[in-house]
Amino acid sequence: MTKMPDGMKTFFEPESVVVVGASATQGKPGNDAVRNILANGYRGRLYLVNPRGGQILGIGVHRSVQELPEAADLAVIILPAADNARAIRECAAKGIRFFVLAAGGFSEVDEQGAALQKELARAVSETGVRVIGPNTSGHTSTPYRFTSSFFPLGKIPRGRVSYVTQTGNFATHTMRYIITGEHFGLARFVGLGNKLDVDETEVLDFLADDPETTAVLMYLESLKRPRLFVEVARRATKSKPVILLKGGCTKEGARAAVAHTAAMASDDRIIDGALRQAGVTRVWDYTHLIWAAKGLSMMPLPKGPRVSFLAPSGAMLVVLTDLCRDRLGLEVPEVEEKTRRRLQEISPPYIRMRNPVDIWASAVVHGVEYAYREAMEALLSDPNIDAVVPVLMLTEDTGVPPLDFLVDLAKRHPEKPIYATFSGDKRYMDEGKAFLEPQGIPTFPMIEEPFHTLSILVRCQKAMVRGQRFPGAA
Amino acid sequence: MTKMPDGMKTFFEPESVVVVGASATQGKPGNDAVRNILANGYRGRLYLVNPRGGQILGIGVHRSVQELPEAADLAVIILPAADNARAIRECAAKGIRFFVLAAGGFSEVDEQGAALQKELARAVSETGVRVIGPNTSGHTSTPYRFTSSFFPLGKIPRGRVSYVTQTGNFATHTMRYIITGEHFGLARFVGLGNKLDVDETEVLDFLADDPETTAVLMYLESLKRPRLFVEVARRATKSKPVILLKGGCTKEGARAAVAHTAAMASDDRIIDGALRQAGVTRVWDYTHLIWAAKGLSMMPLPKGPRVSFLAPSGAMLVVLTDLCRDRLGLEVPEVEEKTRRRLQEISPPYIRMRNPVDIWASAVVHGVEYAYREAMEALLSDPNIDAVVPVLMLTEDTGVPPLDFLVDLAKRHPEKPIYATFSGDKRYMDEGKAFLEPQGIPTFPMIEEPFHTLSILVRCQKAMVRGQRFPGAA
Repeated sequence: MTKMPDGMKTFFEPESVVVVGASATQGKPGNDAVRNILANGYRGRLYLVNPRGGQILGIGVHRSVQELPEAADLAVIILPAADNARAIRECAAKGIRFFVLAAGGFSEVDEQGAALQKELARAVSETGVRVIGPNTSGHTSTPYRFTSSFFPLGKIPRGRVSYVTQTGNFATHTMRYIITGEHFGLARFVGLGNKLDVDETEVLDFLADDPETTAVLMYLESLKRPRLFVEVARRATKSKPVILLKGGCTKEGARAAVAHTAAMASDDRIIDGALRQAGVTRVWDYTHLIWAAKGLSMMPLPKGPRVSFLAPSGAMLVVLTDLCRDRLGLEVPEVEEKTRRRLQEISPPYIRMRNPVDIWASAVVHGVEYAYREAMEALLSDPNIDAVVPVLMLTEDTGVPPLDFLVDLAKRHPEKPIYATFSGDKRYMDEGKAFLEPQGIPTFPMIEEPFHTLSILVRCQKAMVRGQRFPGAA
Repeated sequence: MTKMPDGMKTFFEPESVVVVGASATQGKPGNDAVRNILANGYRGRLYLVNPRGGQILGIGVHRSVQELPEAADLAVIILPAADNARAIRECAAKGIRFFVLAAGGFSEVDEQGAALQKELARAVSETGVRVIGPNTSGHTSTPYRFTSSFFPLGKIPRGRVSYVTQTGNFATHTMRYIITGEHFGLARFVGLGNKLDVDETEVLDFLADDPETTAVLMYLESLKRPRLFVEVARRATKSKPVILLKGGCTKEGARAAVAHTAAMASDDRIIDGALRQAGVTRVWDYTHLIWAAKGLSMMPLPKGPRVSFLAPSGAMLVVLTDLCRDRLGLEVPEVEEKTRRRLQEISPPYIRMRNPVDIWASAVVHGVEYAYREAMEALLSDPNIDAVVPVLMLTEDTGVPPLDFLVDLAKRHPEKPIYATFSGDKRYMDEGKAFLEPQGIPTFPMIEEPFHTLSILVRCQKAMVRGQRFPGAA
C-alpha cells in the first residue's frame, strides 16, 4: 500500500497548460517560462494569462483565468508570493487542479513569508488542488516536451534518467551544464522547493513505475515523510537505480540548509541505515550525480565490480589499480588464459600482458586503433570482466585516432559498459569527447572519474539484485 | 648530514650538452630530443653525435664522441639498450660525467634486460659517472631552458613547482596536458626511470635548496633509500611543501608496478607513518597532483583551514559545507560581525548573510560583478578566513561578466588564496578559465575541486609549521 493517490501523471503529461503571470518583457520569469515551453515544442494547448491582455511571443493573452476557454490540466503560477493563494482559488473555481508555484518568499525567508505559506496551505487544502512548490524552479518532462521552468533553459534534451532536487538554481545550473557541456538528456526533472504538497516520496513513487525513467537521481536536504520514503524507495530500487546526494549531513551543512528551503535537514545518522537497506545508493559529491547520470544515460549498468582498463602508462595502471582496490570497492581481476594469450599476441614479448593492460608497446607497434580494438575485444569477451575503461593517449603524435572501433565494440557488447578517458593534449581530449559521446560512448575528463562512476553504479546494481532476491526483506 | 655529493646542479644547469644518438628522422626519439632542446631555447652549447655526420635541424653533427671539441657537461644517450654501457665508457673517456639514459629494455622487461642493466651498472661504477635512468623520459629545467626529454613536448612553460616522477609516459602526458590545458608551468621535472644511480632522495635533496622550486610534487612507486628519503624530506618540508602520490599501495597495484619499472613497491604501511612524520603530504588521486600544482603555482599556501565560499545556490552551499566538514578537514567558520554587516548591506534583507555566502539575491539586485566583489572584499579582509572560493554562475543571462575584480582582489589580498569555480554553461566556464588563469587566478572545472585542493595544501601548510616549530622532532 505504498501507492499514492494519482496526480503526478498530470503534472508530467498535461494536455493543456496555463501560465498565470505570463509576461511580454524579455528577461522576466513570466516571459522565460513561455519561451521555455515553446522552445521545448510542447504539443498540448497553451494559454497565457495577464491582466493586460495582448500578445506574448505570438500567443494571444487572456486577461483573467475566468476567461479561459477550458480548465487547463496544469497552471504555472508566476506571481508575487502574496498573490499565490488568491490565484489558486481563482483557478480552482475555474476547475484547474494542478499547480506549479514559482514564487519564493515564503517559509524559506522570514516570518512574513511563513504567514504567506500558511495562507497558501489553507487555499490548497480548502480547494483540494495539488501543488509543486512554492519556491520551485519548476519541473520538466521531455517525453512530453514540457517544462514549467522559468529560468532560461532552452530545449532540454530527452533522456532516460530522471532527477529530483530540492532546490532551484542547483537544478537549473545543472541542467544548463548538461545541455551545454554533455551529450545526454533527462526524462523528468522536478525542483521540489518548499514541498507544501508534492514531496520526494510521491515523485519517487511515480518514477518507480514510469516507463520513461530507467534511473532516478535525487538531491534532497530533508525527507518530509521518511518512513514512507524508505518504503517507496525499497520498491523503486527493485527495478531501477536510485542515487541520492543528501545535503545537510553535517551540523554546519544542515544550518546552511535551513537558510534556503526552510527545511530542517533530517538527522543523517538515523536515516542512513534505513536508506541503505532500502537500496538507495548515496553519493557525497554533486559532481558524482552528473557522472552517474552520464553513465546511466549512455551505458548499461555494470553487472558486477570486475573492471579492466587499458592505459599507455604503467604508472597510470598502478595508480588506478590502487584506487579501485583501496577506495572504490572495484576488482581488477586476472583475465582468462584465452584473453591473456590474445593480449600477448598484439604485444612485443617483453611486456607481460595482463589486467590492467599496459597498451603502450602494442600501440607503438600496431597503432592506437588496432591495439586498443584487439585488446578491448578480448577483454569484453572475457566472462571475468564487467566493464572496460580505455585510457586513450591523445597527443600531437596521435591526434585523435579513428575511434569508430569503440562505437562498434559497444554495439557488439551491449551488456558491458565502456567508459573512455584521456591523457595528453586538452584539445584532442575535447575532440575525442565530441566524437564519442554523440555516438553513445561516455567520456570522462580526468582518469579517476570513470572508476568513481562505475563504483557508484556497481553499488546500484548490488542494491537492485538484493531487492529482487529478497522481495520481503528490509 | 643529509647533504648529498654535488651533481644535481649540473643535471639541471648544464653549460654544454651532447645528444648521442641524435637523429635526422622526424618522429624518432633522437630527433624529438633535439627539437625539444631547440624549442625550449637552450642557451648553452649543444652538440649532436651520429656516426653518419651531416646536419640535423641545422646543426652540424659529430661522427663520434671523440670528435667533440670539449667534454660536454651532460650527455643525453638515445641509443638501443645494448649500446648504453659502451657509450658511457666512450663519453667518460672524453671526460663527460653526467648522463641521461633514455633507453628502456633493462631490468623492467626481462632477464636479458637485467643482464644489460648489470653491465651498465658496472660501466657507471667503473667510470664514476652520474646517471639519470635508464628507462627515463628525461628531465627538464625551465629556468635553464633545457630538457632532455625525447617525447615531443614543445616549449615547456616556466613555473615554480617541481615534479619528480618514477616513470615516463606518466610524466610526459601530464606535461602535455598541463601545457595544452592549463596556464601554469613547472620549474624542474625528472623522470627517474630505473634509478640505477640518481634517485628520488638525491633529487629531493637538491630541490629542497633550489631557489627556483617553491614546492615539490612526486609520483613514486618505490623508495630506493627509504630511511634517507625520510630524513631529506623532513628537511625539505620545513621550507616547502612536498606532496607525494605513491603508487602500489595495494597488493594489486604493487603487482602492476613491478611490471613497468622493475621496482618492488615499498610496503605502504611501513613507510606511511614515517612519511607523515617527515611532513610529506600524501594524495591518492593522480588528478589531485595536477590540481595541487595549479594551486601552488598561482596562489599562496592557505595559512589555515578556514574557508569561505560564495555560491548562487543554497544547495551548493549545503553540499560544499558537508564536503568541507565531513571529508576534507576544512572549517567553514562564522565571519566577524563587521564582515557579516558588510555582506548584509549588499543583500535583500530576507537573506540572512553568513558564511558560506548565498550570493544569488545580491547578484540579482546588484549584478554579479558588484555582488561578488563587495562580498569577497569583506571576506578576504576577515581575519577568520584563510581562503575564498567564488562559485561563479555563468549562463546565457550573465555570459562571462567582467571578472577583472577578481584579479584586483588577488593583488590587494596577496596572502589569501582565491580559487574560482563555475556553474552553468560549459562555454562560459571555458571562457572564464581562459580569462582568469593567465592573470593568475586558478579555476577548477567542478565545484568540489577547489576544496580538495585547499584541503591538500592546508595539510602541507600544517606540516611546514610543525617542521619549523620542532626542528629536531621526528
